[in-house]
Amino acid sequence: MKIQLALDRMEIAEAIELTRKVADSIDWIEVGTSLIKEFGVASVKELKRAFPAKTVVADIKTIDNARYEFEMCFESGADVATVMGVSPLVTIVACMEVAQRYNKQVMIDLLNTSAEQKRALMKYKEAIFCDHVSKDEQEISGSQNRGMKNGELLEDPDILVAAAGGISLDSIGKLRETLNPAIAIIGSAITKADNPAAAAAKFKQICLQEENLV
Amino acid sequence: MKIQLALDRMEIAEAIELTRKVADSIDWIEVGTSLIKEFGVASVKELKRAFPAKTVVADIKTIDNARYEFEMCFESGADVATVMGVSPLVTIVACMEVAQRYNKQVMIDLLNTSAEQKRALMKYKEAIFCDHVSKDEQEISGSQNRGMKNGELLEDPDILVAAAGGISLDSIGKLRETLNPAIAIIGSAITKADNPAAAAAKFKQICLQEENLV
Repeated sequence: MKIQLALDRMEIAEAIELTRKVADSIDWIEVGTSLIKEFGVASVKELKRAFPAKTVVADIKTIDNARYEFEMCFESGADVATVMGVSPLVTIVACMEVAQRYNKQVMIDLLNTSAEQKRALMKYKEAIFCDHVSKDEQEISGSQNRGMKNGELLEDPDILVAAAGGISLDSIGKLRETLNPAIAIIGSAITKADNPAAAAAKFKQICLQEENLV
Repeated sequence: MKIQLALDRMEIAEAIELTRKVADSIDWIEVGTSLIKEFGVASVKELKRAFPAKTVVADIKTIDNARYEFEMCFESGADVATVMGVSPLVTIVACMEVAQRYNKQVMIDLLNTSAEQKRALMKYKEAIFCDHVSKDEQEISGSQNRGMKNGELLEDPDILVAAAGGISLDSIGKLRETLNPAIAIIGSAITKADNPAAAAAKFKQICLQEENLV
């Protein structure tokens, strides 16, 4: 299980400083939607410049204007960019096409997708599928319900699954037992920890133990 | 019918310069999603600073993190901010709450919403409902199909409807006959016209004729 550090609700400089503290323990860096909408694509550029060896995910949450947004992300150094699964399918197709042209990756965010939409999306096998409990669902509704049930969508072992939303040191064990994603997207459990480096190291230890088990 | 000028795929300075040319003919200024994602919320701030007397719409296309994004837009001078109708309902509720607190408005973008989602959204009567044919649907699929059929959702005369996507001098007449929105959102038919001021003036003339007819 890889760790994708989600950076949200902070300044770019703060995001870089925080990432430096935990860089040894995390695999991928996510430039959160809030950074992109607050500071623009400069946020992606600066994070990639600071960490050129890391995979940088631009959480741009595209839902239209796919070519423009995805080209902008990849030109700014992103290795992966996100598109909403609730978009018109033509938007997903355009994201896949741009990513292929740049030799980069698409992450499809399954937030609020219907079962029918999920089925339709599954044919984009080169994409990473992100099972996402949104901030609003967590913080306002208190929901922890994931859209992907244990085993659902996982019949094809080649499909890469990520999980995002409220993953903590307490919940990551259960996540592994149920969804067992290839990528665990972790935000505040690291960024808001009293000691982010120590928290990230604990997550890494859990992920390594797991690899040894497999 | 009000005209909302949609500014997309350009620099902030270009957006301001273009708006100056057409300001007399348009009612609302939309800071397009591409400006926000490329340059951040500074795009909203600068447009509002340049045109303090105009209603500024931040097309932020919120789908999560509603309070943070809507507060950011309103603090930056936006009078209206957009949320995707395909969001979890908790996100819509949070947008409505923030807008009420700031005495501002929410525009709900109905892009790719199901009939069931549209019905659920209709209870937020203080919102503006945007019938949206997306850029990707227009440019890649060549679609011009609107989600709102003639009369649908318009049973309540107090509901404010906007229409966006591919509206031209050729198509605005048909739009008036079918959806007859309170707000026509017009992008490239003005911004890409050989003479944007002349194009905007023609749209204004059509809208005024219509008001005289009613």
